[in-house]
Amino acid sequence: LDQEKMNQAQERLDSLTKPPGSLGKLEEIAVKLAGITGELFPKVDHKAHIVMAADHGVVAEGVSAFPQEVTTQMVYNFLNGGAAVNVLAKQMAAEVTIVDIGVVNELEAENLVIKKVKAGTDNLAQGSAMSRQEARAALEVGIEVGKDLISQGANLIGTGEMGIGNTTASSAILATITDLSLDEIVGYGTGIDEAGLKKKKQVITQSLAVNQPQVDDGIDILAKVGGLEIAGMAGVMLVAAANRVPVIVDGLISGAAALIAKKLKPQVTGYLISSHKSVEPGHIKIYDLLGLKPLLDLDMRLGEGTGAVLSMNLVEAATKIISDMATFEEAQIIIE
Amino acid sequence: LDQEKMNQAQERLDSLTKPPGSLGKLEEIAVKLAGITGELFPKVDHKAHIVMAADHGVVAEGVSAFPQEVTTQMVYNFLNGGAAVNVLAKQMAAEVTIVDIGVVNELEAENLVIKKVKAGTDNLAQGSAMSRQEARAALEVGIEVGKDLISQGANLIGTGEMGIGNTTASSAILATITDLSLDEIVGYGTGIDEAGLKKKKQVITQSLAVNQPQVDDGIDILAKVGGLEIAGMAGVMLVAAANRVPVIVDGLISGAAALIAKKLKPQVTGYLISSHKSVEPGHIKIYDLLGLKPLLDLDMRLGEGTGAVLSMNLVEAATKIISDMATFEEAQIIIE
Repeated sequence: LDQEKMNQAQERLDSLTKPPGSLGKLEEIAVKLAGITGELFPKVDHKAHIVMAADHGVVAEGVSAFPQEVTTQMVYNFLNGGAAVNVLAKQMAAEVTIVDIGVVNELEAENLVIKKVKAGTDNLAQGSAMSRQEARAALEVGIEVGKDLISQGANLIGTGEMGIGNTTASSAILATITDLSLDEIVGYGTGIDEAGLKKKKQVITQSLAVNQPQVDDGIDILAKVGGLEIAGMAGVMLVAAANRVPVIVDGLISGAAALIAKKLKPQVTGYLISSHKSVEPGHIKIYDLLGLKPLLDLDMRLGEGTGAVLSMNLVEAATKIISDMATFEEAQIIIE
Repeated sequence: LDQEKMNQAQERLDSLTKPPGSLGKLEEIAVKLAGITGELFPKVDHKAHIVMAADHGVVAEGVSAFPQEVTTQMVYNFLNGGAAVNVLAKQMAAEVTIVDIGVVNELEAENLVIKKVKAGTDNLAQGSAMSRQEARAALEVGIEVGKDLISQGANLIGTGEMGIGNTTASSAILATITDLSLDEIVGYGTGIDEAGLKKKKQVITQSLAVNQPQVDDGIDILAKVGGLEIAGMAGVMLVAAANRVPVIVDGLISGAAALIAKKLKPQVTGYLISSHKSVEPGHIKIYDLLGLKPLLDLDMRLGEGTGAVLSMNLVEAATKIISDMATFEEAQIIIE
């Protein structure tokens, strides 16, 4: 991060016609963007949102309210522009890129980026979700997709996902990395009931016992209890940071990806921007671990990166504040 | 509120390609808008933001970090487009209307709506801030300004204000209406220090003792410990509700106006939409009293309606979700 530009940004913000700090997190974002981009007046006029889609073998354990087939059906819904993330991205003028990084079914469509590493993970309750090589390959997919978008000019990237069963994998990642109890971490996902919640916790406990993921080895965690789309999002975050492009963390699953990215490259957190506070209990713990605070409090629990897309507007607002507001001097306002 | 349209909206939301309720407060807004407008697919394509400006005699007590002159200077800053609210409103494509409803100085400008009821309130620590007649006249100004904008097609209205000293008046209103202690209500405003905070609480205590505002009489509260811009915003809320136009509550001061509007017409709360959670401690209590929950958590404390303007984008998102998303049937997604 460019500390000098961050200081300049802070100085400029304090000269604008408002009480110092009164725009709260918008000002923090403006300072962070200066550090990320090395520019005092960065633009976020080319917004790109990436949805990574993959399946999870663990659905065999009955951890989700929806059948696995829904991953495939929702990918086609994304491609047809009918999902929540499409509607919100259109409103924010963000381009959406859909990536098949590991859906069970063979998919075909002109506007789908097909980079399938594996046709869904294996059941993490019975063994490793994937091999180390596959985890690395999935990270690499994220890096490639991110790099492509950045080379096309993307200056703000959102991360989202689709994958029935992926709150289970994400909760297992969080349980591995922290000392939190499963009661503090595990939520209802897309809508399981109490019996389902109990089952989900049992499955996660079992997966940790069976796999013994190594807390200091991000690839090991990813391979044993992670997911292909989680690896892909982590790759996107790493490549965005490496190219000094701000990248937005969405809910629990995108947050789990950020934790993995941080394990692999601790500096990545400086390039992450928060979005909403999810209903999933583990989500706010992830923000704590990343040093982030939520911007939106909308009780959402949909995924797809819907929160990330909604917060693009706030990031843009931060850029306008620092560049377009009048200073006290310009406005001839004399205080004290 | 149109209960039948609200039921239809809920039904439509539950048919869209997402787990029921997973878009949280966006779905609640979509239902509320259906109730307000009587339309399943209301548009918020004509956004109007109103900034009411007025001065406060209580600044003589030293309750603000800024001198009274700043109210006037900031009005000119608004008119020149240099303030935070201008920058954010431009981003949201919202028109801004600036109203002089009670600034001490004589102001002149082509794009300023001049409807001065009184050249600033009297010092509420020494007696009534204004007469009942003046409070009614200020309410009437809000009604007129709101009516004009609605007749020009405004279908979403934001409320904001400028008035050095107005967190003191707003806190006094809140203290009158609730049993909360001043420690729970009073905050640092635009940036006073600890000594200033103590002073501010003393002044509010004194104002309540001197004036004895009647808790069941909204006009009495407004006249004795309120403000002209607070009355104006309450008027805007009343006229918006009467015309079935959604109106957005901003921070502490706009929230105090909403409490007054509710005293005068309890049904008004059905037409109010929340925005951010302010740093001012009393603000979240106001939301509770209005039955609202914040959408944005940005640690802001600027006023001007900056939070209201930022949440216009979320209200618009809610309208797009209900109208533009595919249903499960359209997307041929079969669940269970």
